[in-house]
Amino acid sequence: MSVTAAKGFTASGIAAGIKENGNPDLALVVNNGPRAAAAGVFTSNRVKAAPVLWSEQVLKGGRLTAVVLNSGGANACTGPKGFQDTHATAEKVAEVLGQNAAEVAVASTGLIGILLPMDKLLPGVEQAAAALSEHGGEKAAIAIKTTDTVHKTSVVQGDGWTVGGMAKGAGMLAPGLATMLVVLTTDADVDSDTLDRALRSATKVTFDRVDSDGCMSTNDTVLLLASGASEVTPGYAEFAEAVRAVCDDLGQQLIRDAEGAGKDIRIEVVNAASEDDAVEVGRSIARNNLLKCAIHGEDPNWGRVLSAIGTTSAAFEPDQLNVAINGVWVCKNGSVGEDRDQVDMRYREVHIVADLAAGTETATIWTNDLTAEYVHENSAYSS
Amino acid sequence: MSVTAAKGFTASGIAAGIKENGNPDLALVVNNGPRAAAAGVFTSNRVKAAPVLWSEQVLKGGRLTAVVLNSGGANACTGPKGFQDTHATAEKVAEVLGQNAAEVAVASTGLIGILLPMDKLLPGVEQAAAALSEHGGEKAAIAIKTTDTVHKTSVVQGDGWTVGGMAKGAGMLAPGLATMLVVLTTDADVDSDTLDRALRSATKVTFDRVDSDGCMSTNDTVLLLASGASEVTPGYAEFAEAVRAVCDDLGQQLIRDAEGAGKDIRIEVVNAASEDDAVEVGRSIARNNLLKCAIHGEDPNWGRVLSAIGTTSAAFEPDQLNVAINGVWVCKNGSVGEDRDQVDMRYREVHIVADLAAGTETATIWTNDLTAEYVHENSAYSS
Repeated sequence: MSVTAAKGFTASGIAAGIKENGNPDLALVVNNGPRAAAAGVFTSNRVKAAPVLWSEQVLKGGRLTAVVLNSGGANACTGPKGFQDTHATAEKVAEVLGQNAAEVAVASTGLIGILLPMDKLLPGVEQAAAALSEHGGEKAAIAIKTTDTVHKTSVVQGDGWTVGGMAKGAGMLAPGLATMLVVLTTDADVDSDTLDRALRSATKVTFDRVDSDGCMSTNDTVLLLASGASEVTPGYAEFAEAVRAVCDDLGQQLIRDAEGAGKDIRIEVVNAASEDDAVEVGRSIARNNLLKCAIHGEDPNWGRVLSAIGTTSAAFEPDQLNVAINGVWVCKNGSVGEDRDQVDMRYREVHIVADLAAGTETATIWTNDLTAEYVHENSAYSS
Repeated sequence: MSVTAAKGFTASGIAAGIKENGNPDLALVVNNGPRAAAAGVFTSNRVKAAPVLWSEQVLKGGRLTAVVLNSGGANACTGPKGFQDTHATAEKVAEVLGQNAAEVAVASTGLIGILLPMDKLLPGVEQAAAALSEHGGEKAAIAIKTTDTVHKTSVVQGDGWTVGGMAKGAGMLAPGLATMLVVLTTDADVDSDTLDRALRSATKVTFDRVDSDGCMSTNDTVLLLASGASEVTPGYAEFAEAVRAVCDDLGQQLIRDAEGAGKDIRIEVVNAASEDDAVEVGRSIARNNLLKCAIHGEDPNWGRVLSAIGTTSAAFEPDQLNVAINGVWVCKNGSVGEDRDQVDMRYREVHIVADLAAGTETATIWTNDLTAEYVHENSAYSS
């Protein structure tokens, strides 16, 4: 279903030859209207890929008629030539669709620091345009995969309207978004300001709280396109909740498919003085390599949780911290709590609760364990 | 030579039975004077182990007659009982040496969140006192090892005076010091203010810039004791340089022995607008798991360097960044530079230069690659 679950959209995914192994590598998503409202959220990395620089500019107009996405190369750190290539890609899409390049977003993912093979990509755009279909959402989702083992899609139905989407990402998953490309579509009849508001509030509590390996990408892009084809304008709260639900579902799929991961870790920080404190503590725990190794080894090593909390500026007293792992309060008042042998860590899901005893705010961060497979995937070849 | 290279010191290292495997686990270093000046630097982790809380307090007096160190347990996150145990340990040392407990520092390393076996530790103190010797420095260095594969010592000779020391640490190596215990001794005749100044300026550019795995410990302690036994008072610059040289040497030994490491990575940030900028950028690169995996795979993946730089707040323009790996400028002006195939990465030493083109300041950070062995060491058992 993916990006074509909502009415008014067509999509395709084809193999343009950008990837040397011949796998699908080019996706096209087209908004056939009647509306072409859009919003976008991009990486906060200051080293931004050419397509991010381009698409940020395009989104200022609040309109998108098409999105073209490629895997097989990030077009990041490629200088003026890389930007020219992105521009040429948007122009090519505009030409074949009879649209304006200033309303075409571009997204790329793959290795940093190599130029895209434009002699393959541009003919690929023609091929992708010819393949556009109301049933093309799955193929588009497949074409944006890099090290992803599965493609990721999600759909939420409203009352007469739909929000659907696709995502890719399996490494460099970190806040400020991730090496992740996400395209969401809706046939709800909403304007770009509403899309922007709903998208930002959704990503803040979903993709921004997925932190697989602390590495922030140069290419992260999340786009939301509205066609208005349902002719229904839902209430804001209802619409925003649907967008959040799709983002949350896709974010969970990213974590479950993170490179080399054996455990999915949900870190719930409770009783924080502020939401910012809760997020800072959650991230610090999520990025602690020693803890991530311990979880891999099914060792409820709460000392490493406290050690991570101690590096933050959040409000807490060390002797009032409590930590539960899979429901067992292994640390109470900053010291030894319930018997750690009671913690059952055999399953893929691991739930850590860090109680700061400093307020009433809460945040949840998702991460993975650190495994030899992660090291292998990220050292055995360039990615 | 270690802590007994300087005149006026005796030391010992014995097996008290704290470690279940019977390896040495208790070290004692005694300053026989005539001076007992001392200074200390401790972890900046807000979750501090009981011995850190104790020793910080003791150091306020600027005097130490003895340091007792144990491996086999960190006595961190052990609540009021843990602090009582540290206090009892200092009292026991004072009793057997005929000294004042308020001038005895305590340092511990090992697993967080378990109480020390005081029924073994206190008799061990008596055994260690009986074994004190002017040649005991090596044994003391051996007794503080945890996952260290080798013990670490260093000595610098001045003109009629000496600075020597020992260190342990092989994981949780990160700024704000590391899971590291370091005791430095000198027979120079210097007061505690001078020791404090020399020690802080030395640790700031040595141990504080060793960042093996981004994990800051609860127990880091660096102590510097002066006996005055040489009856020589060196000039400050000369003395401070000797302290820095010993710290630098021990810091390098820590990096070379880091858990599971296959590569030692020297990250030199140049042309930064400020030293703080240079350190921030160096740390960000040092903590990038994807880059550390790439280095492990002997892949000169400069895109991951730029991606790490982009997450900082340092002054730079993305299109002016340059990166060299082992002497080859693989990234120029934020884009593709010299041929990455020219980079020879067969050797253990890897040198990354990040040129921010924003000023004249410089800093060097040391780290390691990320390997399957690191994951194994930190997941296969509690540490």
